[in-house]
Amino acid sequence: MINILKSFVITAILVASLFWNPFAKFEATAADIPFGIAIHGGAGTINKEKLKGEVKRKYEQKLQQAVDAGYSLLKAGKSSQEAVIAAIQVLENSPLFNAGKGAVYTYEGEHELDASIMDGKTLNAGAVAGVKTVKNPIVLAKKVMDESVHVLLSGEGAQQFAKEQGIAQIDNNYFDTEHRYQSLLRAKKKLEQAQKELKDFRAAHDSLATEYKVGTVGAVALDKDGNLAAGTSTGGMTAKRYGRVGDSPIIGAGTYANNASCAVSATGHGEYFIRYHVAADICARMQYQGVSLKEAADTVVNKVLKEAGGTGGIIAIDPAGNIAMPFNTQGMYRASKSSNGQSTVSVF
Amino acid sequence: MINILKSFVITAILVASLFWNPFAKFEATAADIPFGIAIHGGAGTINKEKLKGEVKRKYEQKLQQAVDAGYSLLKAGKSSQEAVIAAIQVLENSPLFNAGKGAVYTYEGEHELDASIMDGKTLNAGAVAGVKTVKNPIVLAKKVMDESVHVLLSGEGAQQFAKEQGIAQIDNNYFDTEHRYQSLLRAKKKLEQAQKELKDFRAAHDSLATEYKVGTVGAVALDKDGNLAAGTSTGGMTAKRYGRVGDSPIIGAGTYANNASCAVSATGHGEYFIRYHVAADICARMQYQGVSLKEAADTVVNKVLKEAGGTGGIIAIDPAGNIAMPFNTQGMYRASKSSNGQSTVSVF
Repeated sequence: MINILKSFVITAILVASLFWNPFAKFEATAADIPFGIAIHGGAGTINKEKLKGEVKRKYEQKLQQAVDAGYSLLKAGKSSQEAVIAAIQVLENSPLFNAGKGAVYTYEGEHELDASIMDGKTLNAGAVAGVKTVKNPIVLAKKVMDESVHVLLSGEGAQQFAKEQGIAQIDNNYFDTEHRYQSLLRAKKKLEQAQKELKDFRAAHDSLATEYKVGTVGAVALDKDGNLAAGTSTGGMTAKRYGRVGDSPIIGAGTYANNASCAVSATGHGEYFIRYHVAADICARMQYQGVSLKEAADTVVNKVLKEAGGTGGIIAIDPAGNIAMPFNTQGMYRASKSSNGQSTVSVF
Repeated sequence: MINILKSFVITAILVASLFWNPFAKFEATAADIPFGIAIHGGAGTINKEKLKGEVKRKYEQKLQQAVDAGYSLLKAGKSSQEAVIAAIQVLENSPLFNAGKGAVYTYEGEHELDASIMDGKTLNAGAVAGVKTVKNPIVLAKKVMDESVHVLLSGEGAQQFAKEQGIAQIDNNYFDTEHRYQSLLRAKKKLEQAQKELKDFRAAHDSLATEYKVGTVGAVALDKDGNLAAGTSTGGMTAKRYGRVGDSPIIGAGTYANNASCAVSATGHGEYFIRYHVAADICARMQYQGVSLKEAADTVVNKVLKEAGGTGGIIAIDPAGNIAMPFNTQGMYRASKSSNGQSTVSVF
């Protein structure tokens, strides 16, 4: 009886070994785990005649560099938060985009920067508004999330917090660039001409929103642990006044992430994105209506916002690694890269 | 044949006239048009032993006065926006609540006030953060909505806008009250004792949120035209630092209104209300899940927020005039009055 049992077990092991591949499970799991990243460098009126050849290539190269920076971290098993921050820092350090180094001018001729980040696993979030002396606002937003008990810090107070956290202070004129200064002069002229009548003023401002706001940057990512993150950084609107806060530092408007639905970063006419709480609305539609990321994102950007007159676009990623990048403007600087082989860099 | 027809028509007219009441349609329509208002004066740890007798009556009287101010406007056919502003102004002008006159102290011993308002018909919104010299921040929020092209103005810039709009400036010490000053001293002591270790600091701060934040005020209303509006006003958190912005001026977090779903004003630990975009989430659940106002509000306050550790409550009204006022704290100062005869004033 024992011999029969013994030979049965040995046969079973021999047969099983024919099918057993010590790497099979690992391979299958690794291939099945989706991860990816999408980034944007702003949506708006982008002149096809001006943006071509060498100029276009400069933008595309910087977008590629940013998306690669995030993707390589994800591939190495780092978190979606780290990937989002790395990608945004590349864009913040470039003068091409309206964030960090390339931030636009306020009406008073200064630079006031906003940024936010959100973690889809814990729904923790950090944001800063109206920061003048921090090179990488996205890094400060992350510090607010991790090291403060608050979500949103503003103005002088946010800078005081940055100092206490040991973040290097820079002069506000680090953000000076000639092309943004010329934009300010044009914008002020336009506003002053239109200021005679409120209706004109609103129309002038609305056109400013599309003409002079291109360039907010953002990133969304899914890491190998299945965690989502989203981040956004901006210099705001050219010639902005009165301590205006746009959608970028507003959790739910410019940035939202929830592992139960998706991660979103928005760019566009901020006032509309606040009123329609765009980022959170896309997540809510996925979660409550059960629609796909693509459908939720398209509906909000190309139907709800478009009908309201809210120009702009969004990038989003869901827990399955699906990426959506709809916009209702002429163009949106954007790029994506995911473990399923998708890799894009586009403007129009 | 013609005679038969004639007598038939005459008989029919006579019979019909027996049932016809020229005022019936008007009466039915007027009775069918629901309108109403709900207000809050903050949620949190409210001591039952201290809040009784004459003290409790003072709060109840002020809540009654505020809800009556809004209701009488609605009854007279005024807009939900006017009702919301009138009710909030009564609460802002009282030292009992943490808004306007009764605003708490910042860490630096000043007062920084936030407010927001939203129109459910147009989804227009206005908000201010960190205002120091405006007596009624809700009035300034309304000016931002109507007279600026922005949604959210902050700090010095918001005050500059107030001046340009002809809103009277007051000294910051108008907001000084002895009981709030004593709260600041207690809060600072608690924070300084706990600051040795971040974990303790967070716990201390979390307890501050419930202990020292009671009193944010808000109102939601439905008018006879079927339009919803919501507004919120606050002095923020006792001993707040670093230009901290809470949920009250954040459209989607502390305030939201959409005729397609509901109007919501929130009060509680603001950071949670931002991360869970509470006001807009209640509206989204109604709109996308098709659940009732009561279910949507209860789920968010007593399930989502409670499980996350987010203390507070909300008031909400829908286009049918249904009112919900859930809270997950010991108490919430609240009152409501609607055309269906409902009239409440409660704390616990």
